[in-house]
Amino acid sequence: MTDCIFCKIVRGEIPCAKLYEDDRVISFLDINPINPGHALVLPKNHYATLFEAPPEELHACIAVARQVARAIHRGMGADGLNLIQNNYRAAGQLIDHVHFHLIPRSVGDGFFTSWPAKAYPKGELEKVLERVKKEL
Amino acid sequence: MTDCIFCKIVRGEIPCAKLYEDDRVISFLDINPINPGHALVLPKNHYATLFEAPPEELHACIAVARQVARAIHRGMGADGLNLIQNNYRAAGQLIDHVHFHLIPRSVGDGFFTSWPAKAYPKGELEKVLERVKKEL
Ligand SMILES: [Zn+2]
Ligand SMILES: [Zn+2]
Repeated sequence: MTDCIFCKIVRGEIPCAKLYEDDRVISFLDINPINPGHALVLPKNHYATLFEAPPEELHACIAVARQVARAIHRGMGADGLNLIQNNYRAAGQLIDHVHFHLIPRSVGDGFFTSWPAKAYPKGELEKVLERVKKEL
Repeated sequence: MTDCIFCKIVRGEIPCAKLYEDDRVISFLDINPINPGHALVLPKNHYATLFEAPPEELHACIAVARQVARAIHRGMGADGLNLIQNNYRAAGQLIDHVHFHLIPRSVGDGFFTSWPAKAYPKGELEKVLERVKKEL
C-alpha cells in the first residue's frame, strides 16, 4: 500500500535496522523499543490484521519470529520474551500492516506487569463458550 | 508431562471449555479471563516455550489461533484482539507449556494500555543490531 510505513520499509523507501529478510517476511528493530532489542516481524505483503493474513503468510512469520526471538534472547541476555500481535486500535495496533512484536524482558523492567484476570460469574462461561463456538 | 496442567487438559484428566481440537492443537477458554471470551491455543505436545517448540507445531498453532481469534472477535462483538505469547517468568509466563493467549478487547477496557516505548540513545541502535545479528 502506498501510504503504509511498513510497505515503504519493505520496498526500501525508508531505511530500517534489518535483522532478517526472505521472499515473504522481513524483521527489523523497532526504533522506539519497549526494551533494547525489541523487534518486529511481518509479511512483506500488506494485510491489515491477523484476520486478513492468509495462514501461509502467518506460518512464514511465526517460523521467523521463533528464530529472531531466540537471537534477541541470547544477544540481549534477556530473562524472558513476549510475542505480541495487536489487532485494531482497541488492542493497541498503530500501524495497519499485521506485525508481531518480539520484546525481550528483564526481571523487574516494569513493562506489562498487570494481568487483571478474573473468574467468570456463575453460568457465564457456558454462555460465552456457545457464543464463540457458533462462529467457528 | 505428568504434572503439567495443560498436558492434563490435553489428556482429558482436567475438564476444559473446549473451542477446538485436532491431532496437534487444542483451544479452550481461559477460566480466568482478562475479558470474557479470552482463549488459549497450544500444541498438544509439551514444549516449555516458543524456543523449544518445532516450527511445524507453531504453524499448526498460528493457523488455529487465526481461526479461533476470528470466532472470538465476532462472537463477543469485540473492538480488537491481542495475541500474546509469554516466555519465562520475567515475561509473565505462568504455565511452562507454550501457549498463545487470544484476548478480545473493547475500547476503554483498561487492559494493557501502557506501551512505554522510548527512542534509543544515539549510537545504541547500531550496537544492539550487531548483538542480535551475531546470534542469527
Ligand atoms: Zn503495508
Ligand atoms: Zn504440558
